[in-house]
Order: sequence, then C-alpha cells, then structure tokens
Amino acid sequence: MRAIAVKQGERRPVLVDKPRPVPDAGQALVRTLRVGVDGTDHEVISGGHGGFPEGEDHLVLGHEAVGVVEEPNGTRFDVGDVVVPTVRRPPNGGNEYFERGEADMAPEGMYHERGIVGDHGFMAEYFVSHEDYLVKIPASLADLGFLVEPVSITEKAVELAYASRSSFEWDPESAIVLGNGSLGLLTLALLRDQLGYERLYCLGRRDRPDPTIDIMEELGATYVDSRVTPVSALAEEYEAMDLVYEATGYAKHAFESVHALAPNGVAALLGVPGSWEFEVDGGDIHRELVLHNKALVGSVNSNVSHFESAVDALAEMPEWFTDALVTNVYGLDDFAAAFDDDDTTIKTAVQFSTYEERR
Amino acid sequence: MRAIAVKQGERRPVLVDKPRPVPDAGQALVRTLRVGVDGTDHEVISGGHGGFPEGEDHLVLGHEAVGVVEEPNGTRFDVGDVVVPTVRRPPNGGNEYFERGEADMAPEGMYHERGIVGDHGFMAEYFVSHEDYLVKIPASLADLGFLVEPVSITEKAVELAYASRSSFEWDPESAIVLGNGSLGLLTLALLRDQLGYERLYCLGRRDRPDPTIDIMEELGATYVDSRVTPVSALAEEYEAMDLVYEATGYAKHAFESVHALAPNGVAALLGVPGSWEFEVDGGDIHRELVLHNKALVGSVNSNVSHFESAVDALAEMPEWFTDALVTNVYGLDDFAAAFDDDDTTIKTAVQFSTYEERR
Repeated sequence: MRAIAVKQGERRPVLVDKPRPVPDAGQALVRTLRVGVDGTDHEVISGGHGGFPEGEDHLVLGHEAVGVVEEPNGTRFDVGDVVVPTVRRPPNGGNEYFERGEADMAPEGMYHERGIVGDHGFMAEYFVSHEDYLVKIPASLADLGFLVEPVSITEKAVELAYASRSSFEWDPESAIVLGNGSLGLLTLALLRDQLGYERLYCLGRRDRPDPTIDIMEELGATYVDSRVTPVSALAEEYEAMDLVYEATGYAKHAFESVHALAPNGVAALLGVPGSWEFEVDGGDIHRELVLHNKALVGSVNSNVSHFESAVDALAEMPEWFTDALVTNVYGLDDFAAAFDDDDTTIKTAVQFSTYEERR
Repeated sequence: MRAIAVKQGERRPVLVDKPRPVPDAGQALVRTLRVGVDGTDHEVISGGHGGFPEGEDHLVLGHEAVGVVEEPNGTRFDVGDVVVPTVRRPPNGGNEYFERGEADMAPEGMYHERGIVGDHGFMAEYFVSHEDYLVKIPASLADLGFLVEPVSITEKAVELAYASRSSFEWDPESAIVLGNGSLGLLTLALLRDQLGYERLYCLGRRDRPDPTIDIMEELGATYVDSRVTPVSALAEEYEAMDLVYEATGYAKHAFESVHALAPNGVAALLGVPGSWEFEVDGGDIHRELVLHNKALVGSVNSNVSHFESAVDALAEMPEWFTDALVTNVYGLDDFAAAFDDDDTTIKTAVQFSTYEERR
C-alpha cells in the first residue's frame, strides 16, 4: 500500500510503499479516508519535533485521521464503521496513564505519538489500531472526521481551563484566541457554539483581505491585528478577557496574557515554543496573578473523552464554516500540495479513499 | 477604648483612643481577644500596601483576629461565642461577589480589607462586624483563633490549586513550600495532616540553628537552603514537586517553579511582589507548561468557607507545633514588641483581653 512518510536525513514528505498492516488481537484494520495536515507535521518534517520509530529509517506522517473499519478482527466495531484514532500509544506494554484512559497526561517518555514520535502515523491507505484508541463517529461526519483530533485538543485545553475556575462561580463572557490558524478558528467556533461566549476576539498578523479574517468575522469575532495591538494592550484597547487561548507558540504571549486577563480569568497555553530568553516584568506578572486570582494552564494532547466531545462539537459547526476552513483536500497523486502553506491555505487534508468506495 | 493604629505620614504603630463602636443592625459587638501580626501589617505600616479609610487620618491595624461576642444585637450569635472575623467588606453597599459569599474573588476596588485598605482593622479592645463575616469557632481554640485567618489563606490557595487538577486523576505526593515564615510553616502542617503529602520540603535562607528549621524538620519536612539550591535546581537536587506553594513574594520563584514541578503539577502563588524586570527563558517555561500540563494559579484572600475549613485544620494541628509557632503574645502595654521581627520571631500576636474575663 502507499503511504506518505519522511525519511531519515530528508526534509520533505515522500510516497513510500509498505505492506498492508495485519491487525493483532484487539486491533482493527482501518481503511483510511482522509488525514489532515497541521503545524506539527511541518515541525516533524523539518526535524524540529518528534522522532522516528525505533529501528526505522522513515516515519509515516499524519495524526489527524478518519477511516472506515475494514476488518473488525473481533473488536467492538462493525465493518463500515467510521472511526477516528487517537494519537498517543503506550510504549513497552503500557502504563497507568493509558490504563485509566488519560494518555494525554502521560509524561514525556511514557508515550509514543503516531505520526509524530516513535510510531508510524495514519497517512497510509490502511492502518491498524487497538480498539481502545478508536472513536466511532457518525458516517455523516466521514468527510470532516480528520478535524476531530484538532477539535479534541481544544476540548482538553478548555476542560483544564474551566476546571481551574471550578472552585468559584465563573461566568466567562469574553475570550480571545491568539492565532488565526485552523486550530484558532475551530476554537472560535467551539467557544461561540458550545460555550456561549458573548464577545470573541481573534489575534493574527494579516492584512485584509484575508480568508481567516473573513471567517472569524462571520463567526462574530473581532479581528485583532497584533502589529497594531500587542497582547499586553488588549485589556486597554478592547477589553480584559475572561479566557485567553494561546495557540501561536509565541512565548511572549503567554506572559503578556496575564495582563490581558480579566480578574479571575485563565489563559490556556497550547503552543510549543523553543528556548527563547527575554525580559519580563516578573514582579508585575506574579503580583497580577495573585491579586486577581488568575491562572495559566498548559495543555497538551487529548484523550478519548475529548475526542467524543469533539465529535459533538464538530457535528454542530455550521457547514459554511467547515467549507471555508477546509481549503483543499488532495488526492494521493497530488499529496505534496497538501503540505504547501501560504496565506490562502487554512486547512488541508490528503484523501486516501472515499467512504462510498468498497475494495 | 484603646486601639493600635498607624497614622497618616507615620511609619510606626501607635496606641490611640477611640470610642467603643456601636453595632448597627446585623452587626455584633465583639470583645477582642488576640490579633496576629503578619507581613502584610508590616507593609501597611511602611506604606507599601493598603490605604486609609476615607476621611480618616489613621488606620486601625490588624486583620487576624479572634474575639468573644459581647452584644449579639439580634444576630445568630450568643453572648460568649468565640468568633473570628473575615477580612474583606463590601464598599458602598455591596456587590455580587459579597452576595454570593465570594468576597475573595472580588476585583480591586470592589472590596475594603479591614486593617489593610479602606476599613479599620481589629486591633482594638472591641470591634463590630456584620454577622455574615463572623465565623464561630470552638472556645477551646480561643487562644489560637488568630491563626484561623492565615490558615484560611492556604485553604483557599490549595482549593484553587486542586481545582485546577480536578479534570484528571491527580495523586500528589511531594510538595514544597517556598518560605519559612509562619504562613509557610502553617501550610506545611496542613499539607501533612489534611492532605497527606508523603514528602514535604520547605525553602528558606537561614543558617542552623534556627527555630523554623527545627519546626519543619519536626513536621517531617526537608529543609532546602535557597542559597545552596535555587528553585530552578529543586527537581534535580531533590525531586520534581507535585505542588509548589509560593509564599515569599520573590517573583523569580514563580517562574522557576515551572521547572520545579513534576508533570501535571501546579504552583500556587501567594506572595505579592512589586515591579521587577528580569530575564527568563520564556520559551522554555511556556513549553514546559504545555508539554507537561502544568499550571500556575494565583490566589488572594479567603472567604467564610475557607475560614471554616481552617478552623478544622487548626484544631488538628499538634500542640507542640502551635506552641513553637507562636513565639510571643504581647499585652497592650507592650504591643510594640509584637511588631519587632528577627530570626527568633516566628509568629506574634497582641492580646486585648482573655476569654475568661468578663467585663
């Protein structure tokens, strides 16, 4: 079967030929429908993040997948079930985090991530997965199922952020998403439709006309140009935010968020910056966190429960929104284009097969 | 009656004479037993924190009080009830935070703090308080009741910290308290006896022999000398901590705590530093927060529910501990000594009357 991989020493995705995998006990064989591309894939390809499976000279890419069960192999699934796989897998026979369904809380070294670190991803015509890491979704979502994983990332982050405010009455009304990529836009839609925020903002650094600005405004959010209004000036120029969702990985944002927050607010941090030294007014940040009961909450990955919530959220997203968000879906013959990235691209995926086809 | 106050333009506490207050509807008249002294009092005296009541040329000090109800005045209390007052009061007729019992979550400007900002404190022979802000405690705790307020500060901070970890299974075993003052030592006792931490550490910068080191070691905690092991080296030199409790107000600690935390750990921030610019590896801190689901949670003040939990915690603290913690209780004739601070002083209070006396 054909798969999209990055080889050791190379910095671009290539088509490789691999044997179709055979499911072990507990695993189902899944025919891949679509696999999304995101910033993590680009970091894996460039060598900035992730790692090859032990003993392998290549890594099959892809961690945002949707597929159809081809061989249930004794699992709880039926042939034709549409499923989305989670990303983390237990290395060396498992550990407590996986046993209790909280792979997302496992420390580094206690997980592999398919398509990212230590385990092949889903960009192949078929993949196998243990049934514990497959989430069934409605067939009506087959085309959009590759968005379940990114939405689940937000479900997890929002869950952590809200938990941090759960010991008192907290009725957030204003939120800003830092970052106008596909994850930021999906988060805006979720904050609006699932969590009922009255006032939403989205920070980017784009000139109009821009398709992401069009989408956020159609969602009712206000575009904030970070070149005009830095995060540190948000409270003054717009309003103090009950929730800040940091999805750029620009480290200064995390620290400036403290002053962007309203009293008792929380900033969820999701970006993954590299080492970067800079000056902060640490006393000011510390004092503001304390005197107004603010919190910074880091969040990574997501587990089955977040995937399940994400399916519900995705099902309610308006069609105009997902249509505008998914700028292109490429076939295998044209897969390289899915990894191109410019200001007209929001979200791309590679299509390996269609739900309707039977093989 | 006699009261201890700081006057406008002065930087020391003095005895003043004031009329005994008359309770309004809903208020009880309380005969003061003891009032504790803490770092906030020193900041108020030095002018670094707090503010005078409107139109007053002095501020009666004291926010850690215990007293006996002298005139219930139609409130739910009986004559002779031992009570502890909370600190925050609603300015200008109240607001939603006070209405729902969460004065501790009110933003700046939406509260006064008795003895600190905008309202006279409890260092007087009598005080009045609305019954909503009085917590009855057992008469057996009359002597130690002035410790309820500081313990409640920790109850609130711990509640927020634990809430932030409540969306997943979290079984913390290791904790470090940054700061070996009376609040730090009270927190150690609470973490040991109420929360069952197996391994406790306490950071200070003292040479042995030192009474606070003796106390923490008697509690089973390990003393960490910050001159030898900075917070940034804790994980390597001792162990990564599930909980960090920051009570020094030294702003660099807040940032270094991120690396001191174990995966999925949380740092509760309580100190209140002034402005201080310094360099941090912000990328590193941000990434570590994200990749290991860590959190920083600021916490200020406390409400009635925290006072109630604090009463229970205080009742269970061993007698040797509270005996060693309270280094001196001074009479009104000798009140100035209660504000002296050296390395042999841990916790002091001023005594205004005794539980046994009847007037």
